[in-house]
Amino acid sequence: MEIVTAILTFACAAFALLFAVFKARSVLKHSEGTDAMKKISASIRQGTNAFLGRQYKIVIVFFAIMFVILGAMAIANLLTPYVPFAFLSGGFFSAFSGFIGMKIATSANARTANACRAGLNDGLRVAFSAGSVMGFTVVGLGLFDISVWFILLKFVFGLSPSEITGAMLTFGMGASSMALFARVGGGIFTKAADVGADLVGKVEAGIPEDDPRNPAVIADNVGDNVGDVAGMGADLYESYVGSVISACALGVAAFGSIKAMALPMLLAALGVISSVIGTFFVKTKEGATQKQLLRSLSKGTNLSAVLIAVISFPLVYLIFGKDNLSIYFAILAGLIAGVLIGQTTEYFTSDSYKPTKNLAATSETGTATIIIGGLSVGMLSTLLPVVIVAVCILVAYFVSGGAVSASMGLYGIALAAVGMLSTLGITLATDAYGPVADNAGGIAQMSGLEPIVRERTDALDSLGNTTAATGKGFAIGSAALTALALMASYIDKIKSIDGGAIKVANLSITNPTVLVGLLVGACLPFVFAALTMNSVGRAAQSVVKEVRRQFREICGLMDGKADADYASCVDLCTKASLREMVLPTVVAVIVPVITGFVLGCSGVVGMLAGATATGFLLAVFMSNSGGAWDNAKKYIEGGNHGGKGSDCHKAAVVGDTVGDPFKDTAGPSINILIKLLSMVSIVFATLVVNFSIF
Amino acid sequence: MEIVTAILTFACAAFALLFAVFKARSVLKHSEGTDAMKKISASIRQGTNAFLGRQYKIVIVFFAIMFVILGAMAIANLLTPYVPFAFLSGGFFSAFSGFIGMKIATSANARTANACRAGLNDGLRVAFSAGSVMGFTVVGLGLFDISVWFILLKFVFGLSPSEITGAMLTFGMGASSMALFARVGGGIFTKAADVGADLVGKVEAGIPEDDPRNPAVIADNVGDNVGDVAGMGADLYESYVGSVISACALGVAAFGSIKAMALPMLLAALGVISSVIGTFFVKTKEGATQKQLLRSLSKGTNLSAVLIAVISFPLVYLIFGKDNLSIYFAILAGLIAGVLIGQTTEYFTSDSYKPTKNLAATSETGTATIIIGGLSVGMLSTLLPVVIVAVCILVAYFVSGGAVSASMGLYGIALAAVGMLSTLGITLATDAYGPVADNAGGIAQMSGLEPIVRERTDALDSLGNTTAATGKGFAIGSAALTALALMASYIDKIKSIDGGAIKVANLSITNPTVLVGLLVGACLPFVFAALTMNSVGRAAQSVVKEVRRQFREICGLMDGKADADYASCVDLCTKASLREMVLPTVVAVIVPVITGFVLGCSGVVGMLAGATATGFLLAVFMSNSGGAWDNAKKYIEGGNHGGKGSDCHKAAVVGDTVGDPFKDTAGPSINILIKLLSMVSIVFATLVVNFSIF
Repeated sequence: MEIVTAILTFACAAFALLFAVFKARSVLKHSEGTDAMKKISASIRQGTNAFLGRQYKIVIVFFAIMFVILGAMAIANLLTPYVPFAFLSGGFFSAFSGFIGMKIATSANARTANACRAGLNDGLRVAFSAGSVMGFTVVGLGLFDISVWFILLKFVFGLSPSEITGAMLTFGMGASSMALFARVGGGIFTKAADVGADLVGKVEAGIPEDDPRNPAVIADNVGDNVGDVAGMGADLYESYVGSVISACALGVAAFGSIKAMALPMLLAALGVISSVIGTFFVKTKEGATQKQLLRSLSKGTNLSAVLIAVISFPLVYLIFGKDNLSIYFAILAGLIAGVLIGQTTEYFTSDSYKPTKNLAATSETGTATIIIGGLSVGMLSTLLPVVIVAVCILVAYFVSGGAVSASMGLYGIALAAVGMLSTLGITLATDAYGPVADNAGGIAQMSGLEPIVRERTDALDSLGNTTAATGKGFAIGSAALTALALMASYIDKIKSIDGGAIKVANLSITNPTVLVGLLVGACLPFVFAALTMNSVGRAAQSVVKEVRRQFREICGLMDGKADADYASCVDLCTKASLREMVLPTVVAVIVPVITGFVLGCSGVVGMLAGATATGFLLAVFMSNSGGAWDNAKKYIEGGNHGGKGSDCHKAAVVGDTVGDPFKDTAGPSINILIKLLSMVSIVFATLVVNFSIF
Repeated sequence: MEIVTAILTFACAAFALLFAVFKARSVLKHSEGTDAMKKISASIRQGTNAFLGRQYKIVIVFFAIMFVILGAMAIANLLTPYVPFAFLSGGFFSAFSGFIGMKIATSANARTANACRAGLNDGLRVAFSAGSVMGFTVVGLGLFDISVWFILLKFVFGLSPSEITGAMLTFGMGASSMALFARVGGGIFTKAADVGADLVGKVEAGIPEDDPRNPAVIADNVGDNVGDVAGMGADLYESYVGSVISACALGVAAFGSIKAMALPMLLAALGVISSVIGTFFVKTKEGATQKQLLRSLSKGTNLSAVLIAVISFPLVYLIFGKDNLSIYFAILAGLIAGVLIGQTTEYFTSDSYKPTKNLAATSETGTATIIIGGLSVGMLSTLLPVVIVAVCILVAYFVSGGAVSASMGLYGIALAAVGMLSTLGITLATDAYGPVADNAGGIAQMSGLEPIVRERTDALDSLGNTTAATGKGFAIGSAALTALALMASYIDKIKSIDGGAIKVANLSITNPTVLVGLLVGACLPFVFAALTMNSVGRAAQSVVKEVRRQFREICGLMDGKADADYASCVDLCTKASLREMVLPTVVAVIVPVITGFVLGCSGVVGMLAGATATGFLLAVFMSNSGGAWDNAKKYIEGGNHGGKGSDCHKAAVVGDTVGDPFKDTAGPSINILIKLLSMVSIVFATLVVNFSIF
């Protein structure tokens, strides 16, 4: 069993990576278009490279410090010696996923714009291929890291199943830390540039979006790549790996045997194959409507989902036999829950439905009412995802035998998360192509291509918003389930430490340390969101001042006679976002340790539960408020309530600007935060057990 | 012991009520001023009466239905026969507290304005006396209800301690339901009128605040009375009574004897005496600065707090002897925590400190940045209150012997809440005088009094904002502690039912029903906030349309030649707010029952914990964001960042408008919600134990 698992997982990892290479080559075969396009694309590429380079330098310092700390703990016998290295590998591959995504996205943007000159289908093919590179790189690297460590720990070092999962959880911590840096840093960059460009360029100077006279325009496009692409790549690598390894850990706790690890690993591996098959069904014909485009993308993702739903049934049977066959329904519950959450997200944020239409109507009575309205929409939109996740948890728990053994039930919850993310290859592809199309639109505008090109890229981009909504459903849902699974892993971990069992004997919600932990944990996502939003605000203000300065000081800029100094805006965003990204991540790493020392292990469990509950809610709330404002603005721009330039539109622009850090900085970072908290708790568990007050 | 407790509590109730009557007479001795002032005051009184009259008609229907349901359950032996009557009495006295507060406030507004013509000290005396009437009515009626039921159940019906507390918890449910109606209904009214008056009058028509030409101006002033006065009265009645009876219930659970009930009851009773003494120290001299005014109010409240801190030490000794003397520190912890939370609220919302000053500065870059900034301030401001409450919980739990017996520890937590609210008589007086001064200012403006009068009322009003911040600290902090205490009471209640103990045997946070309950509970405050904010939005939009209509259709209105139709705006607000207040309250009553049936008792416990945690955070976040925006606007109006009429000011007005439903509708309602959920759970416990799925 273990040999088959190892080989198959490794093979699928290789297959995914080869497929990504194949797709990348197909993208690179296309021309980058005119000289102007090449030049702009090169500027964006350069800015993105510069940002990532400097970001990695800072991240390396963090990883070095953590490596020393973990190394010292390993020497003091508080950790196994594999842990520090596993930590590094997780961080490395997470960063690498983001890096590859960024490379292909910055190579594909001009190529997509150029392909759109030939037709919509050509544009879709290039953009979607670029998205696929990213999708399959993420899952390929994830499976690669998992399978290599599995092979090493199992066959080379000959560790026991629980030792294997213990070490593997650590590379989750590495991946999560890196993901948080990438999401927060990239999120601050992209929103600071976006807000800066919009506030001064669009609102104050009255020039159109993506106008080359706007000094922040390149920074804005760089932002799409470092935030929406590199940030998302690192983020989803973390989600993917996190769900698989937490399922492995809980499986070993429940069954004590390697076969429980085999299921999530093979599920992920077979998901790669289903996803690749799905990609071949994504195509569209020229002149396709928005609906047809969406149907073509949905065809691919739905087919992959159905395939994995079908394949996983015999898989469960082969691994667990007919006694535990009902575990299959946990996987199915996860898959369905992911789709449903995506649909509620779409309902609350798409301008085809009532909530966003009504939100657009509130702009009639001014800015204040559209802000209040957007906040309400987001808050209200938390209800259905909570119900869906709640039902999913109960189903997954009880079909997996939770009534007999709690560990088996928890394993079921973790498997639901793996089920949800098993087709990440293709769902991420449909998600990641959005920023590529967005960039392509910017390049089309800046290089003065014929309007039809911009129309086509806009069609692709707008579709990207819908697929992004679905993607968010998977990301948020799986984060909640994975966080719960990791919390259970933490408890298992404590119990496995000498003298630990008594520390988590009383996890009753009426135990004051659990209660206090719950409050502290519930507070963290709020504080974290506040910190990141403040960072965006500060960074944006510096961009605003710089753009104003350039408009004032560079003669002839507005008449197109002089060039704007794009590099200074990129540099400013880079500096600001790198400075601001450190505190939130450090907080996320330190808090679980301090909580452990002060409140003990039961306090940590309370904290994890509190952070997961409010983190989930806040993430849904902020993402959906932001999405609804964004699309309400687009709805008005589509000619409703007075259209572009009307008072309603101005109010909606303010809503959209408020929504930007909500949906692209704070919201997605919280998903990572709640998992990182658990992983840090697990890694420092032995230390906490030995030195905590309670 | 029980006889002394009964007599002393009843006597202090009578004393508080007599003191309120005495204060009321001293207010009514003053003249209402000119005919114009009398006329305006009469209009406000009439509108307020009409609203309350119609509100009570709707509330009576709700109470009648609940009475029938509870009566049927009592007949089916699922409840004791006292429960339906206790429920009614709680609702009645909560409503009555609001009613008396409203009566005195609408009688004192013109009198305060008139007294301000003589001097600042005279104005303060009238307004503060009116506040005192409200403060002592609330505590008097609370103690009266508690002591009468205690006497009835103990001496007339001869029930056991646990039967007594069981029935008394039900009047908490009545009080909470009524409080929620009052807060939500009043909160929607006041903010709809406020937003409507501001958006059309100030922003569109460009006339000053409280200008008699604005058709919504009377509705705005009525709103202050029905929301900030009647709503707050019912709300704090509920908090006060809830904290005392939950401490009684937990005390009986911990000690099994009546003496554990005596402590919270006598603590509250002695708090009345300390509060009365404190009121005699509130006075100021003419020409007093803002700081001196504040010092004079603080002198009163601080003295009362010190007095109760001193008196409660011998009280604990007399009741518990020296073995359990350390319980005293639980009370002290509560008192101190209340003060500290109030101070953090002040820090984050007063324009004397950095957060609000920085917030005002963000208006320089536009509306979007001040909105983002305000949301961040509110989110960040949750950290300190959480830490304070966390420390308070741990201290209260462990000094009360929680390490030996969990029930004793929980009793300590409940006592901390009682300690926090023991001086409510005076803290509420300093809080409730704010809306009176606010109304007085409106009357001064509308009746064309000399500007110095408005300056004096403004000085009083602005001070009211600071004392309101402190008041909020007590309200929010005590709500969290009381909600936790009630959750513990719920568990005790379940255990006392046949077959119930096994239903709460596994309250571990890893039990999936607890976890799912936690998620559902965490979601409720979000959904509730969304519902109330939507209601404000809808109601405000109808007011906006009506005001626009009047400006358009009534000839000569703007020139002062024709009168506005004030009554139609009042009527509109009344109808809209009454229509909107039903759903949120009904949701709060139904959800715990449904959760109980579907998830079982452990799910309910999870739900209560989740609702308390996020409810606490959301209440702090929304109150403080709202307060910070409000004061940032006032700071700008004070001549900073361009002063009144500048772009910065416009941005700040939008922030303030968004903050209105945050701080005056959604935020305070959540405090009530989290307690009502527990009380409903307790009342329907027997039903749920018998019929739940899990």
